[in-house]
Amino acid sequence: MRLSKKERQQKLLEALEIEPFLTDEEMARRYHVSIQTIRLDRMELGIPELRGRIKDMAEKNFDRVRSLYPDEVIGEVTELTLDVGATSFLEICEEHVFTRNGIARGHHLFAQANSLAIAVVDAETALTATASLRFVRPVQLGEKCVAQARVTQQTGRTQVAVNTFVEEELVFQGVFDVYRAKEDE
Amino acid sequence: MRLSKKERQQKLLEALEIEPFLTDEEMARRYHVSIQTIRLDRMELGIPELRGRIKDMAEKNFDRVRSLYPDEVIGEVTELTLDVGATSFLEICEEHVFTRNGIARGHHLFAQANSLAIAVVDAETALTATASLRFVRPVQLGEKCVAQARVTQQTGRTQVAVNTFVEEELVFQGVFDVYRAKEDE
Repeated sequence: MRLSKKERQQKLLEALEIEPFLTDEEMARRYHVSIQTIRLDRMELGIPELRGRIKDMAEKNFDRVRSLYPDEVIGEVTELTLDVGATSFLEICEEHVFTRNGIARGHHLFAQANSLAIAVVDAETALTATASLRFVRPVQLGEKCVAQARVTQQTGRTQVAVNTFVEEELVFQGVFDVYRAKEDE
Repeated sequence: MRLSKKERQQKLLEALEIEPFLTDEEMARRYHVSIQTIRLDRMELGIPELRGRIKDMAEKNFDRVRSLYPDEVIGEVTELTLDVGATSFLEICEEHVFTRNGIARGHHLFAQANSLAIAVVDAETALTATASLRFVRPVQLGEKCVAQARVTQQTGRTQVAVNTFVEEELVFQGVFDVYRAKEDE
């Protein structure tokens, strides 16, 4: 059943609060309207398009990455508090999947999580020592992966837990032990 | 001390038996002669250059990869016996390292090991379920990584252990639990 425009715009606002990375395509599918209708809704509500929303979040929620150059993080970092936590976003494109079945290759999910685990560490040099990974379910072409890293231990080696979600479904988990070079090295 | 030509050529043959991926540059350094001298030695001994040696090994030691397209394996596969073991070779280039310190990024070592662990499985579809990784020591720009995968368990999930070496030094270890789709799926 189609919603009224007012109801739909209310739903849009609520949905974007929880899932800020929703694309126009997904919203159109979800509310049974055209992409053009969603664009008009966004304009009326003053909501920027996806790329703009990512940029806005990044500007609001950003410590400076220290341990690597920002463009060395795989995916787009949308939130970062050094030694606390970080979030990044990666859309699975053709280059990330197996030709045969359109399933994302494990090393891309690993790269998103591992580079985020490094980025969150407040040190000039941080390297992964060990990692335990769980590929919870295959990720398909076109899906959008949101990785959330949390620093869970800081004594001795730094431990970073990363959970990656597609919409609200867990698809990948990693626990990374990271060591940081001393500042005077 | 420089060796005689005969001694050097004997050493070359022995070294290449153990380390078939030695470059002319490395051999020249090791035996204190010019690269040109090594090339002449190889010609006299009938030893092809590195790329040719990789190709020869691949042709001699190759089952057909089933679970992915051969060009989806990261690194060059030089040996493969399905459900038994496999070896691949990856030279660390600019594109693999952190700009800041020239250290290979973890996800490239992971990609080499993980894609080899998938390639060795005798199934049309094989996916990584879990992985435990240990980055033993940082790998530098220009180093040549030889990954050796061995199938260690075949009941239920397939377990594949991968050890990656630079020359004879262990630099990375991974244990991968891989599940295979049933043939009739």
